[in-house]
Amino acid sequence: MKEEDGDGVDSSEEEDHPHVPYSPTRYPEDTMLEKSREFYTLMNQRRTVRFISPESVPREVIDNVIRAAGTAPSGAHTEPWTFVVVSDPMIKHQIRQIVEKEEEVNYRQRMGDKWINDLAKFRTNWIKEYLDVAPYLILIFKQTHGILPNNKKRIHYYNEISVSIACGILLAALQLHIGPDLLLSFLSLMSHR
Amino acid sequence: MKEEDGDGVDSSEEEDHPHVPYSPTRYPEDTMLEKSREFYTLMNQRRTVRFISPESVPREVIDNVIRAAGTAPSGAHTEPWTFVVVSDPMIKHQIRQIVEKEEEVNYRQRMGDKWINDLAKFRTNWIKEYLDVAPYLILIFKQTHGILPNNKKRIHYYNEISVSIACGILLAALQLHIGPDLLLSFLSLMSHR
Repeated sequence: MKEEDGDGVDSSEEEDHPHVPYSPTRYPEDTMLEKSREFYTLMNQRRTVRFISPESVPREVIDNVIRAAGTAPSGAHTEPWTFVVVSDPMIKHQIRQIVEKEEEVNYRQRMGDKWINDLAKFRTNWIKEYLDVAPYLILIFKQTHGILPNNKKRIHYYNEISVSIACGILLAALQLHIGPDLLLSFLSLMSHR
Repeated sequence: MKEEDGDGVDSSEEEDHPHVPYSPTRYPEDTMLEKSREFYTLMNQRRTVRFISPESVPREVIDNVIRAAGTAPSGAHTEPWTFVVVSDPMIKHQIRQIVEKEEEVNYRQRMGDKWINDLAKFRTNWIKEYLDVAPYLILIFKQTHGILPNNKKRIHYYNEISVSIACGILLAALQLHIGPDLLLSFLSLMSHR
Protein backbone atom coordinates (compact mmCIF):
# COMPACT_ATOMS: atom_id res chain seq x y z
CA MET A 1 0.00 0.00 0.00
CA LYS A 2 2.34 2.70 -1.25
CA GLU A 3 1.73 6.06 -2.74
CA GLU A 4 0.92 5.76 -6.43
CA ASP A 5 2.55 7.93 -9.05
CA GLY A 6 0.96 11.09 -10.38
CA ASP A 7 1.67 14.74 -10.77
CA GLY A 8 -0.37 15.91 -7.86
CA VAL A 9 -4.01 15.99 -6.99
CA ASP A 10 -6.21 18.96 -6.36
CA SER A 11 -9.30 18.04 -4.40
CA SER A 12 -10.40 21.61 -4.02
CA GLU A 13 -13.07 21.19 -6.69
CA GLU A 14 -14.97 18.92 -4.33
CA GLU A 15 -16.68 20.06 -1.18
CA ASP A 16 -16.34 18.45 2.20
CA HIS A 17 -19.12 15.88 2.53
CA PRO A 18 -20.85 15.79 5.91
CA HIS A 19 -21.99 12.46 7.37
CA VAL A 20 -25.67 11.86 6.68
CA PRO A 21 -28.02 9.46 8.50
CA TYR A 22 -28.66 6.22 6.65
CA SER A 23 -31.54 4.08 7.92
CA PRO A 24 -32.23 1.37 5.38
CA THR A 25 -34.94 -1.22 5.77
CA ARG A 26 -33.83 -4.64 6.91
CA TYR A 27 -35.77 -7.69 5.78
CA PRO A 28 -37.28 -10.13 8.29
CA GLU A 29 -35.10 -13.21 8.90
CA ASP A 30 -37.24 -15.65 6.95
CA THR A 31 -37.20 -13.31 3.95
CA MET A 32 -33.40 -13.03 4.17
CA LEU A 33 -33.09 -16.81 4.23
CA GLU A 34 -35.44 -17.34 1.32
CA LYS A 35 -33.84 -14.62 -0.82
CA SER A 36 -30.32 -15.79 -0.09
CA ARG A 37 -31.17 -19.37 -1.11
CA GLU A 38 -32.86 -18.21 -4.31
CA PHE A 39 -29.97 -15.94 -5.28
CA TYR A 40 -27.36 -18.63 -4.76
CA THR A 41 -29.40 -21.13 -6.78
CA LEU A 42 -29.77 -18.66 -9.64
CA MET A 43 -26.13 -17.50 -9.62
CA ASN A 44 -24.97 -21.09 -9.49
CA GLN A 45 -26.64 -21.65 -12.86
CA ARG A 46 -24.41 -19.05 -14.53
CA ARG A 47 -21.81 -20.42 -16.89
CA THR A 48 -18.98 -18.81 -18.77
CA VAL A 49 -20.05 -19.70 -22.27
CA ARG A 50 -18.33 -19.44 -25.61
CA PHE A 51 -21.36 -19.97 -27.80
CA ILE A 52 -23.76 -17.07 -27.49
CA SER A 53 -27.33 -16.54 -28.64
CA PRO A 54 -27.77 -13.91 -31.38
CA GLU A 55 -31.20 -13.02 -29.98
CA SER A 56 -31.20 -9.41 -28.83
CA VAL A 57 -32.58 -7.82 -25.66
CA PRO A 58 -33.95 -4.30 -25.14
CA ARG A 59 -31.15 -1.77 -25.01
CA GLU A 60 -32.57 -0.35 -21.78
CA VAL A 61 -31.84 -3.65 -20.05
CA ILE A 62 -28.16 -3.32 -20.98
CA ASP A 63 -28.16 0.29 -19.78
CA ASN A 64 -29.74 -0.64 -16.45
CA VAL A 65 -27.25 -3.47 -15.94
CA ILE A 66 -24.39 -1.00 -16.46
CA ARG A 67 -26.05 1.56 -14.18
CA ALA A 68 -26.17 -1.13 -11.48
CA ALA A 69 -22.49 -1.97 -12.04
CA GLY A 70 -21.68 1.72 -11.65
CA THR A 71 -22.97 1.65 -8.07
CA ALA A 72 -19.93 -0.42 -7.08
CA PRO A 73 -17.64 0.93 -4.37
CA SER A 74 -14.30 2.30 -5.55
CA GLY A 75 -11.09 3.56 -3.96
CA ALA A 76 -11.76 7.11 -2.66
CA HIS A 77 -14.98 6.98 -4.73
CA THR A 78 -13.07 7.64 -7.95
CA GLU A 79 -15.35 5.33 -10.03
CA PRO A 80 -12.47 4.40 -12.33
CA TRP A 81 -14.43 2.59 -15.05
CA THR A 82 -15.64 3.08 -18.58
CA PHE A 83 -18.32 0.82 -20.03
CA VAL A 84 -18.69 0.80 -23.81
CA VAL A 85 -21.64 -0.97 -25.45
CA VAL A 86 -21.14 -2.05 -29.04
CA SER A 87 -23.96 -3.36 -31.24
CA ASP A 88 -22.79 -2.27 -34.71
CA PRO A 89 -21.81 -5.46 -36.61
CA MET A 90 -18.85 -3.80 -38.33
CA ILE A 91 -17.36 -2.52 -35.07
CA LYS A 92 -18.01 -5.86 -33.37
CA HIS A 93 -16.11 -7.56 -36.16
CA GLN A 94 -13.22 -5.13 -35.92
CA ILE A 95 -13.05 -5.82 -32.19
CA ARG A 96 -13.06 -9.54 -32.89
CA GLN A 97 -10.12 -9.12 -35.26
CA ILE A 98 -8.12 -7.09 -32.74
CA VAL A 99 -8.87 -9.55 -29.91
CA GLU A 100 -8.12 -12.65 -31.96
CA LYS A 101 -4.83 -11.22 -33.21
CA GLU A 102 -3.70 -10.45 -29.64
CA GLU A 103 -4.99 -13.76 -28.33
CA GLU A 104 -3.15 -15.72 -31.00
CA VAL A 105 0.09 -14.08 -29.87
CA ASN A 106 -0.87 -14.90 -26.28
CA TYR A 107 -1.46 -18.56 -27.04
CA ARG A 108 1.53 -19.00 -29.33
CA GLN A 109 4.11 -16.91 -27.48
CA ARG A 110 3.19 -15.08 -24.31
CA MET A 111 1.37 -17.59 -22.17
CA GLY A 112 3.91 -20.40 -22.13
CA ASP A 113 3.41 -24.16 -22.03
CA LYS A 114 2.16 -24.32 -18.45
CA TRP A 115 -0.66 -21.88 -18.98
CA ILE A 116 -1.65 -23.47 -22.30
CA ASN A 117 -1.66 -26.82 -20.56
CA ASP A 118 -3.88 -25.47 -17.76
CA LEU A 119 -6.35 -24.21 -20.33
CA ALA A 120 -6.31 -27.36 -22.45
CA LYS A 121 -9.14 -29.00 -20.54
CA PHE A 122 -11.39 -26.04 -21.35
CA ARG A 123 -10.58 -26.34 -25.06
CA THR A 124 -10.30 -22.61 -25.49
CA ASN A 125 -8.30 -20.99 -28.24
CA TRP A 126 -7.94 -17.57 -29.85
CA ILE A 127 -10.95 -17.93 -32.18
CA LYS A 128 -13.81 -15.89 -30.72
CA GLU A 129 -16.79 -16.24 -33.00
CA TYR A 130 -19.11 -15.05 -30.24
CA LEU A 131 -17.78 -11.51 -30.63
CA ASP A 132 -19.65 -11.39 -33.95
CA VAL A 133 -22.68 -13.33 -32.71
CA ALA A 134 -23.57 -11.56 -29.45
CA PRO A 135 -26.08 -8.74 -29.96
CA TYR A 136 -24.09 -6.52 -27.60
CA LEU A 137 -20.49 -6.42 -26.50
CA ILE A 138 -19.87 -4.67 -23.22
CA LEU A 139 -16.27 -3.50 -23.18
CA ILE A 140 -14.98 -2.64 -19.75
CA PHE A 141 -11.99 -0.39 -19.23
CA LYS A 142 -10.18 0.63 -16.09
CA GLN A 143 -9.04 4.23 -15.78
CA THR A 144 -5.70 4.31 -13.99
CA HIS A 145 -6.16 8.06 -13.47
CA GLY A 146 -8.47 10.91 -14.40
CA ILE A 147 -7.81 14.50 -15.40
CA LEU A 148 -8.94 17.34 -13.16
CA PRO A 149 -10.31 20.63 -14.55
CA ASN A 150 -6.87 22.17 -13.90
CA ASN A 151 -5.31 19.44 -16.12
CA LYS A 152 -3.59 17.73 -13.22
CA LYS A 153 -3.81 14.00 -12.71
CA ARG A 154 -6.38 12.56 -10.36
CA ILE A 155 -5.12 9.23 -9.04
CA HIS A 156 -7.53 6.30 -9.10
CA TYR A 157 -6.63 4.16 -6.09
CA TYR A 158 -7.22 0.41 -6.44
CA ASN A 159 -8.60 0.93 -9.94
CA GLU A 160 -8.37 -2.72 -11.05
CA ILE A 161 -10.01 -4.02 -7.87
CA SER A 162 -12.77 -1.41 -8.17
CA VAL A 163 -13.52 -2.21 -11.82
CA SER A 164 -13.55 -5.93 -11.09
CA ILE A 165 -16.06 -5.46 -8.26
CA ALA A 166 -18.24 -3.53 -10.71
CA CYS A 167 -17.92 -6.50 -13.11
CA GLY A 168 -19.18 -8.81 -10.38
CA ILE A 169 -22.28 -6.67 -9.93
CA LEU A 170 -22.69 -6.57 -13.72
CA LEU A 171 -22.60 -10.36 -13.87
CA ALA A 172 -25.16 -10.65 -11.08
CA ALA A 173 -27.40 -8.17 -12.91
CA LEU A 174 -27.17 -10.02 -16.21
CA GLN A 175 -27.94 -13.30 -14.52
CA LEU A 176 -30.87 -11.79 -12.64
CA HIS A 177 -32.45 -9.89 -15.52
CA ILE A 178 -31.83 -11.63 -18.75
CA GLY A 179 -31.67 -15.15 -17.54
CA PRO A 180 -28.45 -17.13 -17.70
CA ASP A 181 -27.43 -16.18 -21.20
CA LEU A 182 -25.37 -13.63 -23.09
CA LEU A 183 -22.39 -13.75 -20.76
CA LEU A 184 -19.04 -12.89 -22.19
CA SER A 185 -15.75 -13.76 -20.65
CA PHE A 186 -15.06 -10.57 -18.77
CA LEU A 187 -11.70 -11.76 -17.64
CA SER A 188 -10.68 -12.07 -21.23
CA LEU A 189 -11.95 -8.64 -22.18
CA MET A 190 -10.37 -6.95 -19.22
CA SER A 191 -6.94 -8.25 -20.11
CA HIS A 192 -6.88 -6.51 -23.47
CA ARG A 193 -5.93 -3.03 -22.52
CA MET B 1 -0.39 -10.86 -20.30
CA LYS B 2 2.84 -12.67 -19.61
CA GLU B 3 3.56 -16.02 -18.13
CA GLU B 4 3.38 -15.88 -14.35
CA ASP B 5 5.99 -17.42 -12.12
CA GLY B 6 5.64 -20.86 -10.59
CA ASP B 7 7.45 -24.14 -10.43
CA GLY B 8 5.34 -25.93 -12.94
CA VAL B 9 1.77 -27.11 -13.15
CA ASP B 10 0.47 -30.58 -13.47
CA SER B 11 -3.05 -30.67 -14.83
CA SER B 12 -3.13 -34.42 -15.09
CA GLU B 13 -5.28 -34.73 -11.99
CA GLU B 14 -8.15 -33.17 -13.89
CA GLU B 15 -10.00 -34.83 -16.70
CA ASP B 16 -10.73 -33.26 -20.05
CA HIS B 17 -14.14 -31.64 -19.80
CA PRO B 18 -16.39 -32.14 -22.82
CA HIS B 19 -18.68 -29.32 -23.94
CA VAL B 20 -22.19 -29.80 -22.61
CA PRO B 21 -25.41 -28.24 -23.91
CA TYR B 22 -26.61 -25.26 -21.90
CA SER B 23 -30.16 -24.08 -22.55
CA PRO B 24 -31.13 -21.61 -19.88
CA THR B 25 -34.50 -19.93 -19.70
CA ARG B 26 -34.66 -16.38 -20.94
CA TYR B 27 -37.16 -13.99 -19.40
CA PRO B 28 -39.74 -12.16 -21.52
CA GLU B 29 -38.69 -8.62 -22.43
CA ASP B 30 -41.04 -6.83 -20.07
CA THR B 31 -39.79 -8.98 -17.18
CA MET B 32 -36.19 -8.15 -18.08
CA LEU B 33 -36.99 -4.46 -18.10
CA GLU B 34 -38.82 -4.56 -14.81
CA LYS B 35 -36.17 -6.64 -13.06
CA SER B 36 -33.31 -4.52 -14.40
CA ARG B 37 -34.96 -1.30 -13.14
CA GLU B 38 -35.64 -2.82 -9.72
CA PHE B 39 -32.11 -4.13 -9.33
CA TYR B 40 -30.51 -0.82 -10.25
CA THR B 41 -32.80 1.03 -7.82
CA LEU B 42 -31.90 -1.36 -5.02
CA MET B 43 -28.17 -1.42 -5.71
CA ASN B 44 -28.13 2.35 -5.96
CA GLN B 45 -29.24 2.51 -2.32
CA ARG B 46 -26.09 0.71 -1.16
CA ARG B 47 -23.62 2.85 0.74
CA THR B 48 -20.16 2.18 2.04
CA VAL B 49 -20.80 2.80 5.70
CA ARG B 50 -18.51 3.15 8.68
CA PHE B 51 -21.14 2.83 11.38
CA ILE B 52 -22.60 -0.63 11.42
CA SER B 53 -25.61 -2.15 13.17
CA PRO B 54 -24.76 -4.74 15.87
CA GLU B 55 -27.99 -6.61 15.09
CA SER B 56 -27.15 -10.10 13.85
CA VAL B 57 -28.55 -12.10 10.95
CA PRO B 58 -28.93 -15.88 10.58
CA ARG B 59 -25.58 -17.48 9.89
CA GLU B 60 -27.09 -19.36 6.95
CA VAL B 61 -27.65 -16.03 5.19
CA ILE B 62 -23.94 -15.26 5.43
CA ASP B 63 -23.12 -18.75 4.16
CA ASN B 64 -25.47 -18.39 1.20
CA VAL B 65 -24.04 -15.00 0.32
CA ILE B 66 -20.55 -16.51 0.25
CA ARG B 67 -21.77 -19.49 -1.76
CA ALA B 68 -23.15 -17.04 -4.32
CA ALA B 69 -19.82 -15.16 -4.41
CA GLY B 70 -18.07 -18.46 -5.04
CA THR B 71 -19.95 -18.87 -8.33
CA ALA B 72 -17.86 -16.02 -9.78
CA PRO B 73 -15.82 -16.74 -12.89
CA SER B 74 -12.05 -17.05 -12.36
CA GLY B 75 -8.98 -17.38 -14.55
CA ALA B 76 -8.80 -21.00 -15.78
CA HIS B 77 -11.50 -21.73 -13.16
CA THR B 78 -8.93 -21.74 -10.36
CA GLU B 79 -11.37 -20.11 -7.85
CA PRO B 80 -8.51 -18.33 -6.08
CA TRP B 81 -10.39 -17.09 -3.02
CA THR B 82 -10.76 -17.83 0.68
CA PHE B 83 -13.67 -16.41 2.64
CA VAL B 84 -13.35 -16.38 6.41
CA VAL B 85 -16.33 -15.51 8.60
CA VAL B 86 -15.55 -14.23 12.08
CA SER B 87 -18.18 -13.74 14.77
CA ASP B 88 -16.13 -14.34 17.93
CA PRO B 89 -15.79 -10.95 19.71
CA MET B 90 -12.23 -11.65 20.83
CA ILE B 91 -11.05 -12.52 17.33
CA LYS B 92 -12.92 -9.56 15.86
CA HIS B 93 -11.12 -7.32 18.32
CA GLN B 94 -7.72 -8.82 17.49
CA ILE B 95 -8.45 -8.21 13.82
CA ARG B 96 -9.39 -4.62 14.60
CA GLN B 97 -6.10 -4.12 16.40
CA ILE B 98 -4.08 -5.54 13.50
CA VAL B 99 -6.00 -3.49 10.93
CA GLU B 100 -5.81 -0.25 12.89
CA LYS B 101 -2.09 -0.64 13.48
CA GLU B 102 -1.45 -1.14 9.76
CA GLU B 103 -3.84 1.62 8.80
CA GLU B 104 -2.20 4.09 11.14
CA VAL B 105 1.11 3.43 9.41
CA ASN B 106 -0.68 3.86 6.09
CA TYR B 107 -2.14 7.20 7.03
CA ARG B 108 0.97 8.53 8.76
CA GLN B 109 3.66 7.23 6.42
CA ARG B 110 2.74 5.11 3.41
CA MET B 111 -0.07 6.95 1.71
CA GLY B 112 1.51 10.36 1.26
CA ASP B 113 -0.03 13.83 1.38
CA LYS B 114 -1.91 13.53 -1.91
CA TRP B 115 -3.77 10.39 -0.94
CA ILE B 116 -4.57 11.72 2.53
CA ASN B 117 -5.84 14.89 0.91
CA ASP B 118 -8.04 12.89 -1.49
CA LEU B 119 -9.56 11.03 1.45
CA ALA B 120 -10.05 14.13 3.63
CA LYS B 121 -13.53 14.82 2.31
CA PHE B 122 -14.65 11.35 3.41
CA ARG B 123 -13.30 11.98 6.92
CA THR B 124 -11.88 8.49 7.20
CA ASN B 125 -9.04 7.58 9.50
CA TRP B 126 -7.43 4.47 10.94
CA ILE B 127 -9.96 4.00 13.76
CA LYS B 128 -12.32 1.18 12.78
CA GLU B 129 -14.83 0.72 15.55
CA TYR B 130 -17.17 -1.16 13.22
CA LEU B 131 -14.81 -4.14 13.29
CA ASP B 132 -15.94 -4.71 16.87
CA VAL B 133 -19.57 -3.78 16.25
CA ALA B 134 -20.48 -5.79 13.15
CA PRO B 135 -21.94 -9.22 14.03
CA TYR B 136 -19.86 -10.84 11.30
CA LEU B 137 -16.64 -9.92 9.57
CA ILE B 138 -16.15 -11.52 6.19
CA LEU B 139 -12.43 -11.59 5.47
CA ILE B 140 -11.59 -12.12 1.85
CA PHE B 141 -8.21 -13.43 0.75
CA LYS B 142 -6.77 -13.95 -2.70
CA GLN B 143 -4.74 -17.08 -3.31
CA THR B 144 -1.87 -16.27 -5.67
CA HIS B 145 -1.32 -19.99 -6.19
CA GLY B 146 -2.52 -23.35 -4.96
CA ILE B 147 -0.70 -26.57 -4.17
CA LEU B 148 -1.35 -29.69 -6.24
CA PRO B 149 -1.45 -33.20 -4.70
CA ASN B 150 2.11 -33.70 -5.99
CA ASN B 151 3.19 -30.57 -4.02
CA LYS B 152 3.80 -28.54 -7.15
CA LYS B 153 2.43 -25.04 -7.49
CA ARG B 154 -0.79 -24.45 -9.31
CA ILE B 155 -0.79 -20.94 -10.76
CA HIS B 156 -3.90 -18.83 -10.19
CA TYR B 157 -4.22 -16.60 -13.24
CA TYR B 158 -5.77 -13.16 -12.70
CA ASN B 159 -6.29 -13.96 -9.03
CA GLU B 160 -6.94 -10.38 -7.89
CA ILE B 161 -9.43 -9.69 -10.69
CA SER B 162 -11.21 -12.98 -9.97
CA VAL B 163 -11.50 -12.33 -6.23
CA SER B 164 -12.73 -8.80 -6.84
CA ILE B 165 -15.46 -10.05 -9.19
CA ALA B 166 -16.52 -12.47 -6.44
CA CYS B 167 -16.65 -9.47 -4.06
CA GLY B 168 -18.99 -7.70 -6.46
CA ILE B 169 -21.37 -10.65 -6.39
CA LEU B 170 -21.04 -10.76 -2.60
CA LEU B 171 -22.02 -7.10 -2.35
CA ALA B 172 -25.01 -7.66 -4.63
CA ALA B 173 -26.07 -10.62 -2.51
CA LEU B 174 -25.79 -8.69 0.77
CA GLN B 175 -27.76 -5.82 -0.68
CA LEU B 176 -30.43 -8.18 -2.04
CA HIS B 177 -30.85 -10.37 1.03
CA ILE B 178 -30.17 -8.42 4.14
CA GLY B 179 -31.27 -5.04 3.01
CA PRO B 180 -28.79 -2.21 2.65
CA ASP B 181 -26.91 -2.72 5.86
CA LEU B 182 -23.92 -4.53 7.28
CA LEU B 183 -21.57 -3.62 4.45
CA LEU B 184 -17.92 -3.41 5.23
CA SER B 185 -15.36 -1.65 3.15
CA PHE B 186 -14.11 -4.58 1.11
CA LEU B 187 -11.49 -2.47 -0.57
CA SER B 188 -9.99 -1.80 2.80
CA LEU B 189 -10.05 -5.44 3.86
CA MET B 190 -8.60 -6.66 0.61
CA SER B 191 -5.60 -4.40 0.89
CA HIS B 192 -4.42 -5.97 4.14
CA ARG B 193 -2.71 -9.02 2.92
